[in-house]
Amino acid sequence: MKEEFQQKLETIKPIKWDDGKVVIIDQTALPEDLIYESYTDYKELIDAIKKLKVRGAPAIGIAGAYALVLALNQMPDFNLDEILKIADEIISARPTAVNLSWAVSNIYSLIKKNSKKSFKFIKNEVALKTAINIHNDDIEMCKKIGVNGNALIKNGMKILTHCNAGILATGGMGTALSVIYTAFDSDKNIKVFADETRPLLQGSRLTAWELNYMGVDTTVICDNMAAWTMKTKQIGCIIVGADRIAANGDTANKIGTYGLSILAKEFDIPFYVAAPSSTLDLKLSSGNSIIIEERGSEEIIKIGNKIIAPENINTFTPAFDVTPAENINAIITEKKVHFFPFKDFEE
Amino acid sequence: MKEEFQQKLETIKPIKWDDGKVVIIDQTALPEDLIYESYTDYKELIDAIKKLKVRGAPAIGIAGAYALVLALNQMPDFNLDEILKIADEIISARPTAVNLSWAVSNIYSLIKKNSKKSFKFIKNEVALKTAINIHNDDIEMCKKIGVNGNALIKNGMKILTHCNAGILATGGMGTALSVIYTAFDSDKNIKVFADETRPLLQGSRLTAWELNYMGVDTTVICDNMAAWTMKTKQIGCIIVGADRIAANGDTANKIGTYGLSILAKEFDIPFYVAAPSSTLDLKLSSGNSIIIEERGSEEIIKIGNKIIAPENINTFTPAFDVTPAENINAIITEKKVHFFPFKDFEE
Repeated sequence: MKEEFQQKLETIKPIKWDDGKVVIIDQTALPEDLIYESYTDYKELIDAIKKLKVRGAPAIGIAGAYALVLALNQMPDFNLDEILKIADEIISARPTAVNLSWAVSNIYSLIKKNSKKSFKFIKNEVALKTAINIHNDDIEMCKKIGVNGNALIKNGMKILTHCNAGILATGGMGTALSVIYTAFDSDKNIKVFADETRPLLQGSRLTAWELNYMGVDTTVICDNMAAWTMKTKQIGCIIVGADRIAANGDTANKIGTYGLSILAKEFDIPFYVAAPSSTLDLKLSSGNSIIIEERGSEEIIKIGNKIIAPENINTFTPAFDVTPAENINAIITEKKVHFFPFKDFEE
Repeated sequence: MKEEFQQKLETIKPIKWDDGKVVIIDQTALPEDLIYESYTDYKELIDAIKKLKVRGAPAIGIAGAYALVLALNQMPDFNLDEILKIADEIISARPTAVNLSWAVSNIYSLIKKNSKKSFKFIKNEVALKTAINIHNDDIEMCKKIGVNGNALIKNGMKILTHCNAGILATGGMGTALSVIYTAFDSDKNIKVFADETRPLLQGSRLTAWELNYMGVDTTVICDNMAAWTMKTKQIGCIIVGADRIAANGDTANKIGTYGLSILAKEFDIPFYVAAPSSTLDLKLSSGNSIIIEERGSEEIIKIGNKIIAPENINTFTPAFDVTPAENINAIITEKKVHFFPFKDFEE
């Protein structure tokens, strides 16, 4: 990684451990303001997670791990029952975030296993070290996804992406965006088109902001402009992240991903999913049984204080959709690039 | 038309002639407030057109015609040179609106032809009568599109639409929405899904508002939810309006229409365009030569006062796209339903 790129990257990490403090970027203030906030009180950090100041499954997991470390530092004496209560409190900040519950439960188990050791050892050598390991593993995972995916990116390529699967969502360089950053950092001349991604606008608010900040040539479009963009702008590939991938390759991701995959077929544009292998849910034979969360209508009816639809109107607000495996040319994980048909997930 | 329906319809006409006054609905206040404004000064009405309080090509044309009538009423003595100047002033309020220039030029020519007659005759029997005729013709045209299109709507159908081609855009019941209203008024049980239609949100702000007001069961979705809606909600057909139709049937319409037509093919859902035959531009052999207007980036970067993308970001902001004829099952005009392949436009 080039030094200048690395330096910039460090300034927009969504979460950092800084000698007893947790420093986050308040993502609710983006793209208008880049505000860092520093936490030593675990309860305040939980509150920041609840308020979506930190978001993205991997970033939330790391934030939760550090929150437990802060809680131990605030505790006068070792109290395993109290630690369990706090762990549950952290996990319930975002109950559906699998990474959060995984990271916090993992640290709690190690604390329990080491409960005969000194409290200082438990704090520093067990909890903090494990949290830092979780964070570092995520950084490595992002890097490997980037390197693997970069093999699919040609010099001069125009790439379309959706939602935010970037620096701001992870401990490292992201998943889908890590592929883009790795291509950019290896001096490939690329241009990115970012769908704004209604209703929560993660594409225009976050993806466009971070790509622009890192120096990547980025153009924002409304979601409904994707077909015309594909037709007129020579899009070379589409890369998106994933929330859950079934054993056959069916992929749940942010609403709008499925439509993009159909348009990609129409224009013969390769469609790639980039995600850590932990996103694979091999117990699911297909995407048919994935339950799609529906969100509240206020996300469609209001933007900021502006009312943009009749307040009593019906809405249909799926947060995710499922893209069938046959619409996906390749799934990029930290292990390798898996090509359709996806027979090698367990290798 | 049922009486209750007719009565409601009259209350949300975007423009009316009321005994020397022009009454409009301020569409920039919708969906929050239904505000009627009354004009006797033609300059103020021009200003309302410029501020998009009246929008939709047919409605703008009618507003322009009445603006010229107001100007004559304000004029102490007949002055043809002055009338020409005012006509140009009205036309330049929205220079690309073909209906506006057509309506105003039409009235001006008739005034010129009758310039030997009394000023009173010119005002009442030439200008006002022609303006009212233009308005009434539009009402009739909308009705006929509705009746013709209704033949394609089955009882129980779920219909997806995009942008606003409704009451608020025309003198009458709209084009695409006239089909929906006619089906509704003939007691067909229908449900409508309205794309919000970024960036200007005509779908959520206007289409959802007027359908809801008229009693039609309406659900708003974000544009990127269309594919998942088609997959999960048994959409029976898609109906949109048109800005310009080439001789082969290629159709320019609001950005996002083209993408919807590709999705419709994927799901085998009939895709219909509803428009007056004046939208047909038979000099154009195909849609390839239609120039697509690009709008300013502020439409993507801000909603109300809220900044939703980095202010220095690139944007791509086509206002329209072109749907190829082969993606369109039928084009509904006031004359008939034309089915693909479109060989009978000149009949």
